[in-house]
Amino acid sequence: MKPSGIVTLLTDFGQADPYVGVMKGNMLRRFPGAVFVDLTHAVPAQNVALASFWLERSYRWFPAGTVHLVVVDPGVGSARRPLALKLGGHYFVGPDNGVFDRLLLNEAPEHAWVIEPEQLGIGALSATFHGRDLFGPTAAELARGTLTLESMARAEPAVTPHVVEEPAADASLARIVAVDHFGNLITDFDAERLVPGSSCRVHAAGQLLPLMRTYADAKPGECMALVGSFDTLEIAARDSSAARLLGLTTGDTVRVAAD
Amino acid sequence: MKPSGIVTLLTDFGQADPYVGVMKGNMLRRFPGAVFVDLTHAVPAQNVALASFWLERSYRWFPAGTVHLVVVDPGVGSARRPLALKLGGHYFVGPDNGVFDRLLLNEAPEHAWVIEPEQLGIGALSATFHGRDLFGPTAAELARGTLTLESMARAEPAVTPHVVEEPAADASLARIVAVDHFGNLITDFDAERLVPGSSCRVHAAGQLLPLMRTYADAKPGECMALVGSFDTLEIAARDSSAARLLGLTTGDTVRVAAD
Amino acid sequence: MKPSGIVTLLTDFGQADPYVGVMKGNMLRRFPGAVFVDLTHAVPAQNVALASFWLERSYRWFPAGTVHLVVVDPGVGSARRPLALKLGGHYFVGPDNGVFDRLLLNEAPEHAWVIEPEQLGIGALSATFHGRDLFGPTAAELARGTLTLESMARAEPAVTPHVVEEPAADASLARIVAVDHFGNLITDFDAERLVPGSSCRVHAAGQLLPLMRTYADAKPGECMALVGSFDTLEIAARDSSAARLLGLTTGDTVRVAAD
Repeated sequence: MKPSGIVTLLTDFGQADPYVGVMKGNMLRRFPGAVFVDLTHAVPAQNVALASFWLERSYRWFPAGTVHLVVVDPGVGSARRPLALKLGGHYFVGPDNGVFDRLLLNEAPEHAWVIEPEQLGIGALSATFHGRDLFGPTAAELARGTLTLESMARAEPAVTPHVVEEPAADASLARIVAVDHFGNLITDFDAERLVPGSSCRVHAAGQLLPLMRTYADAKPGECMALVGSFDTLEIAARDSSAARLLGLTTGDTVRVAAD
Repeated sequence: MKPSGIVTLLTDFGQADPYVGVMKGNMLRRFPGAVFVDLTHAVPAQNVALASFWLERSYRWFPAGTVHLVVVDPGVGSARRPLALKLGGHYFVGPDNGVFDRLLLNEAPEHAWVIEPEQLGIGALSATFHGRDLFGPTAAELARGTLTLESMARAEPAVTPHVVEEPAADASLARIVAVDHFGNLITDFDAERLVPGSSCRVHAAGQLLPLMRTYADAKPGECMALVGSFDTLEIAARDSSAARLLGLTTGDTVRVAAD
Repeated sequence: MKPSGIVTLLTDFGQADPYVGVMKGNMLRRFPGAVFVDLTHAVPAQNVALASFWLERSYRWFPAGTVHLVVVDPGVGSARRPLALKLGGHYFVGPDNGVFDRLLLNEAPEHAWVIEPEQLGIGALSATFHGRDLFGPTAAELARGTLTLESMARAEPAVTPHVVEEPAADASLARIVAVDHFGNLITDFDAERLVPGSSCRVHAAGQLLPLMRTYADAKPGECMALVGSFDTLEIAARDSSAARLLGLTTGDTVRVAAD
């Protein structure tokens, strides 16, 4: 697989300090042609579950051969394994702590490598910033094409999903996994499970919400259910925040009911 | 006109979620050489008027042939028209909801095209994210040079300014259209209307402010009027926030008076 | 020295307004091949001391020949000198107001130039935005290789460190210079001054903290001292905010004690 030269970044670093910048700098030292796209650096600190969700929902929008670098890494410097995966025509680099869970629910990795620093010519390694010192360099070499997992992955590790969140026991329950910038409540309830053409309703915070096609189909301030931008069930409010209006947030559930 | 390959982005998406990232990813799938510059993603949700102001004040600082992608789009999925314009040596892509108003006050578009998804090879289109699915691909094809408005714009639409804000009735009134990160109060009162060389003063929140040349001409904490970075009248405070000191914000007016 | 084509940006502009964007646009007009990396735009307004710290700690992570553009410039439009430096294999551009202090404590500049606008073909110059109008163009020409300080710096200015912060009088005191996104307390106490292998402790807010290797070595919620990502003493809390737990912030000191 020919790399695209693109590296996406998904971290909990925020953008107030130069952590993201020096991580990019260190990648440019290995691969001056790298093209960076920030997915988000605003994952709440150490929220592996949300990182895993955004990663799985986002990667397919990039060209094949893109490297996706995920650094939400509370166990930095401890025994958790650093991983590089090839899956679905893309590369993924990050700690083996559950950030890849959502990816692995659908598909087994074609190749998986427990990153060995010495194979990348890395001598000293900080104990606190493997994004800059280990994962970044791995991503850079994959994007540059000088590292190919095919040749490294002799002893292929079994990557076990951590299953950071049990699927809902009741198939009609949809769990809110993210509240976005607009106050939309994004669930992980796959849009394919909503019977197309059929009318259904969603019970949320004591209200019965109609399934609509788009935001503009509701009246201003009215709450609705719809298929959101990441192809899952979403609860939204026209020109307003459903999170605020309904008092719901990440971890809460809503119930899908046939009409 | 040869495209510069640059695409600027101006949205109300925030940067906490991967919306901006996947929009860029989908553009890179069409044009891997695209160069992105974020103008801002912090336009308050659905604030078409502010987007229109920043766009008109910012575009001229980029090389000719740059594509400016504006996605503040409360009517996504509804009947509002998706537009691509050529004007002043630049391209503009976004919804026909007023985001182009400030541009069109000065100049008529050289070409205007109501974007037709099928002409771009777009089949399925989400109902909630046309930035990613429609406007982004249009911007990518314009930046790549594979889409030329000259050949598309056979049936040229009349783009009517929405005039999201009436100009102030009294010519001496300056309306605050933005409060920036420093607390500077930015008006849309064109600097050319301040008689050069003449001394004038600005009445703001019961105070009479002198017109100064730059921030350092005032005493620490002192409020002043000056020609701001975007060539309009600005009210600022040295090493402080004029918004806080004067209690003024977007929508408020100040009065310009000859000395 | 061959420029890398990379320009890093370190400002107090925030990201809510298009200041950073138009600064990049104006650089692209001079050097379309420029590659930008944002270090941070969240330096508190006019905090020259913090900008100086982040700059000195960050620049070495980039390829040689990179241009580092620093615009924390409360004196914009006044008599403070605009500077371009060559030092340690990198270029630096910004106002002579102390932002280069930390760099100059270690090393004298190889070349220093008081930027002359007319040499860059700059006629009119705003009085409020030299990042866009003067420093940016200088950075672009250095990154492009059309400006070489060697040929300009005939009358080499003596760049005097402003010494924005006196070093702590007591050698065992470590001053907190930044609180990062995670609530880690970052000091400017050089890690080399911690005797390697020896055990030492840090007195902070009435507590005696052990020196640990990495975050995961502490118990959840426990505070610790460690060598941080920028090779200085750092106070952190596992999976929590040391700033909140200890009630310490920028400007406060902690004391390093041999065990």
